Amino acid sequence: MSVLTASMEGLVNALKKLPGVGPRTAERFAFYLLTQPASIAQEMAQAILKIKQTVGFCKTCFNLADEDHCTVCRDPGRDKSVVCVVEHPRGIIAIEKSGGYKGVYHVLLGALSPLDAIGPKDLKIQELKERIKQGGIKEVILATDSDLEGEATSLYLGKELRALSAPASAPVQITRLAAGIPMGSAIEYADQVTLIRAMEGRRAL
Amino acid sequence: MSVLTASMEGLVNALKKLPGVGPRTAERFAFYLLTQPASIAQEMAQAILKIKQTVGFCKTCFNLADEDHCTVCRDPGRDKSVVCVVEHPRGIIAIEKSGGYKGVYHVLLGALSPLDAIGPKDLKIQELKERIKQGGIKEVILATDSDLEGEATSLYLGKELRALSAPASAPVQITRLAAGIPMGSAIEYADQVTLIRAMEGRRAL
Repeated sequence: MSVLTASMEGLVNALKKLPGVGPRTAERFAFYLLTQPASIAQEMAQAILKIKQTVGFCKTCFNLADEDHCTVCRDPGRDKSVVCVVEHPRGIIAIEKSGGYKGVYHVLLGALSPLDAIGPKDLKIQELKERIKQGGIKEVILATDSDLEGEATSLYLGKELRALSAPASAPVQITRLAAGIPMGSAIEYADQVTLIRAMEGRRAL
Repeated sequence: MSVLTASMEGLVNALKKLPGVGPRTAERFAFYLLTQPASIAQEMAQAILKIKQTVGFCKTCFNLADEDHCTVCRDPGRDKSVVCVVEHPRGIIAIEKSGGYKGVYHVLLGALSPLDAIGPKDLKIQELKERIKQGGIKEVILATDSDLEGEATSLYLGKELRALSAPASAPVQITRLAAGIPMGSAIEYADQVTLIRAMEGRRAL
């Protein structure tokens, strides 16, 4: 027999679905919501409902957007000739927070993963090719994750996009984010693959 | 400028209020909800709203209850002569999960904490005294937390309840949960206060 009331049980079960949240954390969240003023619970419930109603994808780059196009694509100050390809909108947030990038983005909405049956057709690769074919793009930066799926996606994209841009009079440059030792980290803590990549990518000072 | 849409920003801000959830975890939760089918987000939003509408406190013991009385107080199989005093309904869940207790409960809905201006009048202490005065209670087990506030609350309750039960013909026994080394733990990892308590509470084998 559970000592939680039926409605608390329902909330705990719903909260347990959040990533990384187990039964104990879900109980903690549920008790927190229970003890807060009704306005805070209502605000959260409405915020959850609202994103499902209002948030869609940008028609150009598939970033999250409340309107037809995302805030980056609508910004006239961004350099539309440089396109950074990321797996998820989360990647855009990370790059935007770094503050050093002034181009635009293209979100694949995933990465190639044969085990999960995610092939090229399940990603926004065709849409990226269309954008390149329309012209005006000088560089495509592949910024997929540096895990197995991300690396495979980059390799695949590099091959496809080179074939695509080869015959054009103005070739599109395809680049990949540098792999190496993270800043502020000691070499002794770097794993072997990262060290090999850092060696391969060494630059003249 | 934020790259999140306004509605995502709103959800992240709402989720950040959950205990132990920072901006990055809130973003992760928000993206999870965004990518799930609308039914999962709706289920969660409704579960949040529902607890604020349906969950109240048991009129006898102040445990959470969907009706006038909680599931423990309504259970005819529980021993009503033994009352276990806890700070929060969470305490009841923990004790019920252990499965070794067959009495009923009394929830104080907090602990004495002068720094937070929580005094005896802010807790359900008067209600506990009334329950004892009504008779039929043989033992009160003080199961407040073993932190500073919980210990202080137990000391205070012990003094108050002894004064209350003294003149009666059938004296009420006041007990406190044992403090000592947690099961499965090595003595070398126990802190000093716990060790002193374990020594004080040693029992003949």
